[in-house]
Amino acid sequence: MTVLDQLIKSLSRLPGIGTKSAARLSYYFIQADRESNRSLAGQIAEIKDKIFTCSVCGSYTENDPCPICTDSTRDTSLICVVEHPQDVLTIEASGSYDGLFHVLNGAISPLDGIGPEQLSIGSLLKRIKEHTFSEIILATNPTEEGDTTALYISHILKNTDLRITRLASGLPIGGDLEYADKITLARSMRGRIRLNN
Amino acid sequence: MTVLDQLIKSLSRLPGIGTKSAARLSYYFIQADRESNRSLAGQIAEIKDKIFTCSVCGSYTENDPCPICTDSTRDTSLICVVEHPQDVLTIEASGSYDGLFHVLNGAISPLDGIGPEQLSIGSLLKRIKEHTFSEIILATNPTEEGDTTALYISHILKNTDLRITRLASGLPIGGDLEYADKITLARSMRGRIRLNN
Repeated sequence: MTVLDQLIKSLSRLPGIGTKSAARLSYYFIQADRESNRSLAGQIAEIKDKIFTCSVCGSYTENDPCPICTDSTRDTSLICVVEHPQDVLTIEASGSYDGLFHVLNGAISPLDGIGPEQLSIGSLLKRIKEHTFSEIILATNPTEEGDTTALYISHILKNTDLRITRLASGLPIGGDLEYADKITLARSMRGRIRLNN
Repeated sequence: MTVLDQLIKSLSRLPGIGTKSAARLSYYFIQADRESNRSLAGQIAEIKDKIFTCSVCGSYTENDPCPICTDSTRDTSLICVVEHPQDVLTIEASGSYDGLFHVLNGAISPLDGIGPEQLSIGSLLKRIKEHTFSEIILATNPTEEGDTTALYISHILKNTDLRITRLASGLPIGGDLEYADKITLARSMRGRIRLNN
């Protein structure tokens, strides 16, 4: 196997990259300038040494605690619970939220053998106990596992003063009614919003 | 900018990788094992030092001349002319050809300021003069530029004994007539093949 074949094979193991894209990327690297290849290679080689998870909220960070946990200008009365570290970045990028986060590292999924004890629910309850939050936003995915996890957490917290919320489900903005799946459409029908008084 | 943002930015500069795929790949690298990241990084960093173009045919190789040019079991009476080094790999992967190659490094494109003198046509004519080929297959792309280039080369060679051919154009196998574009359909109509005698 040539080094080119090896590179194509390595790249095609990455998520979302098939053999054709891997080949295309490899040809690109052969034609790109040496310095930019070296720079990207360095970043890939070192990412795991530089990025780890925040010991407080569990999101990706270069410093512990993370910049979100230590940012005093954020609304510390809100805590948003997500499944994965990358969900924090997605919500941050939306610019729609300025509270704190908590990463569960997954969702309850009995079929995959993931129960509540495998998730960071204990540390979530500890944070809620030690800090006065006014609202907890259960932003787990709108899937069966995410819904189950949200329901589970809301059940544990039902006797607290905490306002418990869930992200709205419905039609994606800019989407076409024609392409909406049945379940999404049914949910957005059930959650319809009144426009007049 | 965090190292994670930097990695996402670097990855999103690669062809066919948008910001979302770049983010997804970055999260993958954070979760993947250190050794496989390092291995891939090493391959990207070194590819330009290990792969260069064959001084005879112009295709990508680790050794000069390339394994195709030096393979005595191949049919050395055939020479296949392509636009880019990666086209050699594509044709090799099809398993449909076992002759020699010649890479032009582009196609004639007056709008982009690429004339015949920018392509490896001189070295092609030299090879044809010094070696007795029976057939030259003009496998430039079925585009205006590729057709022009093929026509240009066939014009130069018109007074030789060389059999000059061009790859057949037509409907892609497994494709649906309904989805074929007009020009492809017109070409495959013009080039229709008789099935009976």
